[in-house]
Amino acid sequence: MKLTILKEYLNDSIQHVSKAISNKTTIPILSGIKIDADANGMTLTASDTDISIQSFIPTELNELSIIELQRKGSVVLSSKFFVEIVRKLPASQVEIEVNDHFQTTIRSGSSEIQLVGLDPEEYPTLPSIEENRRIQLPSDLLKTMIKQTSFAVSTNESTPILTGVLWSAQNGKLKLTGCDRHRLASRETQIDVDPDFQLSNVSISGRTLNELSKILPDQNTLIDVIFAENQVLFQLSSILFYTRILDGTYPDTSKLIPQSYQTELVIHAQQLANAIDRAYLLSREEKTNIVKLIMREDQTIEISSSSSELGKVTEQLDVNSLTGELLRISFNSKYMLDALKVIDSELIHIGFTGAMQPIIIRPEESNNLLQLILPYRTTN
Amino acid sequence: MKLTILKEYLNDSIQHVSKAISNKTTIPILSGIKIDADANGMTLTASDTDISIQSFIPTELNELSIIELQRKGSVVLSSKFFVEIVRKLPASQVEIEVNDHFQTTIRSGSSEIQLVGLDPEEYPTLPSIEENRRIQLPSDLLKTMIKQTSFAVSTNESTPILTGVLWSAQNGKLKLTGCDRHRLASRETQIDVDPDFQLSNVSISGRTLNELSKILPDQNTLIDVIFAENQVLFQLSSILFYTRILDGTYPDTSKLIPQSYQTELVIHAQQLANAIDRAYLLSREEKTNIVKLIMREDQTIEISSSSSELGKVTEQLDVNSLTGELLRISFNSKYMLDALKVIDSELIHIGFTGAMQPIIIRPEESNNLLQLILPYRTTN
Repeated sequence: MKLTILKEYLNDSIQHVSKAISNKTTIPILSGIKIDADANGMTLTASDTDISIQSFIPTELNELSIIELQRKGSVVLSSKFFVEIVRKLPASQVEIEVNDHFQTTIRSGSSEIQLVGLDPEEYPTLPSIEENRRIQLPSDLLKTMIKQTSFAVSTNESTPILTGVLWSAQNGKLKLTGCDRHRLASRETQIDVDPDFQLSNVSISGRTLNELSKILPDQNTLIDVIFAENQVLFQLSSILFYTRILDGTYPDTSKLIPQSYQTELVIHAQQLANAIDRAYLLSREEKTNIVKLIMREDQTIEISSSSSELGKVTEQLDVNSLTGELLRISFNSKYMLDALKVIDSELIHIGFTGAMQPIIIRPEESNNLLQLILPYRTTN
Repeated sequence: MKLTILKEYLNDSIQHVSKAISNKTTIPILSGIKIDADANGMTLTASDTDISIQSFIPTELNELSIIELQRKGSVVLSSKFFVEIVRKLPASQVEIEVNDHFQTTIRSGSSEIQLVGLDPEEYPTLPSIEENRRIQLPSDLLKTMIKQTSFAVSTNESTPILTGVLWSAQNGKLKLTGCDRHRLASRETQIDVDPDFQLSNVSISGRTLNELSKILPDQNTLIDVIFAENQVLFQLSSILFYTRILDGTYPDTSKLIPQSYQTELVIHAQQLANAIDRAYLLSREEKTNIVKLIMREDQTIEISSSSSELGKVTEQLDVNSLTGELLRISFNSKYMLDALKVIDSELIHIGFTGAMQPIIIRPEESNNLLQLILPYRTTN
């Protein structure tokens, strides 16, 4: 392999694929980035077996020559050092030459770098995905849906399936659900698919989806999502992002969500978040995060937390409406703040079915987003 | 104590003094901030015994009423939680009321906070400083001098005196010196003092000076620096910053600095820094940071580093001038980068007195800044 490439394009591709590299890999070749070059362009691949990312740089783009190929070929370069050095090369052009035994020379301006390359034949091949089930989602919607659900997944590796966000689809609707044993976040959207398109039990690691989010473009381009038996492929314009579907059966969470409420509250989201944030600061010092909500006859609520050592925070808030039984209820303020943070609505609706039943938070004007938190059992 | 104060002023003062609070303090009352209020204004004090910071908020400033005092008094409030909650209070006015047993109530908008206060009588008194020796320095110059020297102090607590920056003065010049066993950084400036003003063996913790730097104003205001027997006081407009002088005798470093050079090099600072940065990236993977500099007859230098596992970086650089014996010399690239980073000059002068002798780096046009690093002993 011998070629010259514009540094900017090489660097962007390296930054994208390097997100798949794990520092903890026990397979030495997976600490490298695989480079393949031919007349069409250059393909970079990185993988930690759970995630694989492939990025393609075309030889020419909109009449701009990006790569000048002199000899095609492949090599695997250790990502340590390579990822950083390319970003810091002095000139806008980078020459890459691979010789016998994969010895690689990189030249740019006054710099010459010799790298010990590895045999690309030893690099695992990427899963082949049959395109049986495919949906399209606008990039910014996909980012938002990931943000609104992935924070709620479990971080406990003893139940791996719950560390994933569940993707389910039926009746032309796609739903993402994140859930640990104390809270649940779900977001639904219409998708343009055949009426009989269904997805069930597709759980994708929340951490992986957050990595994907970082390379999703901000512009409103369409992302193809292709579901195979064990893998999901996210297809951006020049990037392929493969991820494994988590093993196991995702629990049925539908029964957690009440169909009607004993008490309903409509309140200004930001004012509630600010008040709970102050109560959280104190509850955090107690390491419990417990905050108490008390509803009053005069259409106000009181948010409070206390610490025997430090003191007490009390917040009085007006509500827009409060109907049903007046409750006293305690919950994890951190979970409530997480839920409020991803609801992009001026007013929110909170539904209660009793002091020991799940609390349901939604935007006031929409049903496509739902946040659930379980209350704490406290002695008043 | 009972008063109402503008949140913005209270918050600024808290942020300043809280820098003196250590999480590791074993004296419970020192985890608090002392508040004293009288007709003149409010004084906040925090201390970890090494550093003490006092901030004064006047009742009125430029005809703006900042504090409305109803009852004077004092209290100590645990800084945990207090520092953060004040920043997040909902209204621009904050009411503070201290009752029996130092029980403190803070009210702002819809929030009411009860805090357990401590007895201010138990708070240690600040050192009294006799103003025997005082200099004045512009705030931005003091910041620069700290930045140019504090990075070079030792982090090894077994020689506490070397964890400090040495302040010395004679012949109308002030000099700051930071030094560990491998490098030295010094910066000199003219000061306006009596001809017989002298300072020696005043070593102030580098970490403390960096904390001071964060609260020094960016504007070019004059800072008073007052030297007492065991303490130095930095006096900003409304802030007093006390720090302890480190115990012990600072070693004489003057003999380290050669009076003449065997080899002299003038080179573009940024180009050299970029080349060493790339070589550093590789040397860092080897955990040695060793970079080699080879001088050539054709007025170029080669910077290189190598790793048996990863490869080699070679950089060719033109120099502006190179006189004397051609050397091959190895050094710690991280130390060289640290030194180059604080030299604000397009061209730098590097002086050598042999492959095993100190390397001296200065701005080409000035002698007030000097950076010294010891070379590595390497084979070949």
